[in-house]
Amino acid sequence: MTEAIRAAVFEELAAVGYARMSIEGIARRAGVGKTAVYRRWRSKLHLVLDLVSALAVQGLPTPDTGSLEGDLRLLYEVTSRALRHPVASQVIPDLQAEAARNPEMAAALQKALREGQHGVASGIVAQAVARGELRQGLAEGDEELALDLMSGPLYWRAVVVRGELPKGYLGALATATTAALKAL
Amino acid sequence: MTEAIRAAVFEELAAVGYARMSIEGIARRAGVGKTAVYRRWRSKLHLVLDLVSALAVQGLPTPDTGSLEGDLRLLYEVTSRALRHPVASQVIPDLQAEAARNPEMAAALQKALREGQHGVASGIVAQAVARGELRQGLAEGDEELALDLMSGPLYWRAVVVRGELPKGYLGALATATTAALKAL
Repeated sequence: MTEAIRAAVFEELAAVGYARMSIEGIARRAGVGKTAVYRRWRSKLHLVLDLVSALAVQGLPTPDTGSLEGDLRLLYEVTSRALRHPVASQVIPDLQAEAARNPEMAAALQKALREGQHGVASGIVAQAVARGELRQGLAEGDEELALDLMSGPLYWRAVVVRGELPKGYLGALATATTAALKAL
Repeated sequence: MTEAIRAAVFEELAAVGYARMSIEGIARRAGVGKTAVYRRWRSKLHLVLDLVSALAVQGLPTPDTGSLEGDLRLLYEVTSRALRHPVASQVIPDLQAEAARNPEMAAALQKALREGQHGVASGIVAQAVARGELRQGLAEGDEELALDLMSGPLYWRAVVVRGELPKGYLGALATATTAALKAL
């Protein structure tokens, strides 16, 4: 039953968005009564926070191809597939919009980001430092910048511009980002 | 009167978000009757589309400091100030969330992006090519990638991570992005 409710939340989020989503709509989509939902979660906020936390824990394995550029290339392939999924491309901007005015949602997304995307990106940087491809002892600010350089451009393309990826895009992105990281 | 309504739309968007915003709420905040709003705009969608188009036309002047790194640095200072404004940081994710399920909103945002941010970024690239800092004749896909490299990381930091900018961040970002663009 819980799995049916979780699936219904994702479908409902993608269809109508967080602000318009209701416990009634989720229950109807899951084929259960409203009380079955309220028995587990106090509100739609708590339901969605619970889902986001569960996703973050799953995480992604850190790529380990033997080079920084290869690791970035693999990261971008996995991430671009995930971002192309219609549920992701509708649900992520929606939860972010909610986070801009809801501190609990903002904290849950920060945590998911730290444990998910940023965990993998940090792992890739650590491997590159161990291989001697990046210099040791990036300043603290530079470490954060490194994560932004690794995550920002593909996110901008997939979620903000919402455009198709031109041919050869992911390879060129990995090359350019490698050069950016080496300049830190 | 129209200016009062425009200001009220921004305030209402920031306060409750697009999905929960109503013409009633806007009229109340602007201190006018509902009919005054409906006389000009058919719906809240049309009102917001009109505002987004007006913003895009304002545009930004292209920085021209004499070097690619200097131009990027200036672009980032202007952009980071704009993104830190509470209205921008709440309204942008909100309109994007709506764009994910509303093709008219998506088209208006695309157009605003092309005429605003991407216009400036393209101007910076063209100047760098003219100066000989970037090679002439980037492949078509590379031109799009260049815009993503220039816009993505700061957006990721300001709107997704929603973190403070560490000390020295914008200068280091300009240096790293210059290296990324030269690798194209």
